Amino acid sequence: MPTKAAPTAPSAARVVKKRRPEQRQLILDEAARLFKERGFGSSSMRDLGARVGLDAASMYNHIRSKDELLEIICFRVSDAYLAQLAEVEQLPASPLAQITELLRHHVRLMTQDGPAVSVANNEWKALTEPRLTEFKAARKRYEKGFAALIEQGIAAGELQPVNVSVALFTLLSAVRWVELWYRPGRDISAAELENDLLLMLLDGLKKPTA
Amino acid sequence: MPTKAAPTAPSAARVVKKRRPEQRQLILDEAARLFKERGFGSSSMRDLGARVGLDAASMYNHIRSKDELLEIICFRVSDAYLAQLAEVEQLPASPLAQITELLRHHVRLMTQDGPAVSVANNEWKALTEPRLTEFKAARKRYEKGFAALIEQGIAAGELQPVNVSVALFTLLSAVRWVELWYRPGRDISAAELENDLLLMLLDGLKKPTA
Repeated sequence: MPTKAAPTAPSAARVVKKRRPEQRQLILDEAARLFKERGFGSSSMRDLGARVGLDAASMYNHIRSKDELLEIICFRVSDAYLAQLAEVEQLPASPLAQITELLRHHVRLMTQDGPAVSVANNEWKALTEPRLTEFKAARKRYEKGFAALIEQGIAAGELQPVNVSVALFTLLSAVRWVELWYRPGRDISAAELENDLLLMLLDGLKKPTA
Repeated sequence: MPTKAAPTAPSAARVVKKRRPEQRQLILDEAARLFKERGFGSSSMRDLGARVGLDAASMYNHIRSKDELLEIICFRVSDAYLAQLAEVEQLPASPLAQITELLRHHVRLMTQDGPAVSVANNEWKALTEPRLTEFKAARKRYEKGFAALIEQGIAAGELQPVNVSVALFTLLSAVRWVELWYRPGRDISAAELENDLLLMLLDGLKKPTA
């Protein structure tokens, strides 16, 4: 009968290394909540440390600065939005189907990562250069891609012939309250919220028979 | 031939009194633009004076304080919204027709008095008590009245059976960009903007035949 080898005890260094990504994620999630509640300018690394149970020195093992936290949060959101756009643009589907999918993903990011989306939407002006310019460019790319789909939908006769800027800003603005209002435990599920929003924006609040 | 009486030369006091309402209005309009551009906290009476061509002392002949300016602007907007709600509630019309009218007036206030609406929407938190509580109550009244119309519309089978809060916040949020974006000279008139917005929100972006 072969001797069962006892599992090697991990060295202290290995434990720290293994736990780091989780702790970093915890810091990022808590930072998004803090910046959302108090605003970036009124939040301190000390506040954040208190919320995650780390002193300032330990925090700096994971994160270089408060500015870096804001950068990571903002670009996590803009990267996600751009990835969704790229994915939808590849779909072998009509512009309307692509817009429906894009809007659904857009709302879903808000219900799944609300505090980060809120920070990206409301605190991005506090980014420092060159990240500020990069963020604005990313946002512009998303808006242009979204607007192009709307234009194609109108050209294809799938959408009402409205002004493209009006349609784009109305769609993006219409869902902006979700990031501030939605939380699990509301009297509506994330899926119902998504469906109601898509119904309202694509089919209209009015019943077709009315 | 009767002598034509020369018009009585107005006394200096009368001139000042006559001009006061206009100058006061000019100060208020310019204050709304300034607060919108820089934020209430970063605006000074000195900045405002420079924009209207009055020194600080003369400004205080018309206005007691910066706080008072914010109050007047915010309540001018909330009073207008509540008056529109009251007017629409009196209409002998279906809930859908009432909502259509309310939404049209809501958007129109944004295109006609954009800077003031923007200040009321974004700077109201700087109001001092008891005005802050009053303003929040006024906003709540408007939202409740609007929500009641949506509820009636759903009950009457005129509107899609969506969650009432979702419908309310989506409508109010959907038009929030207008106050920031619209200005005469855009490639769309205020009337076209109104029509596109109402079409999108009530009938949907999708063409019914699609």
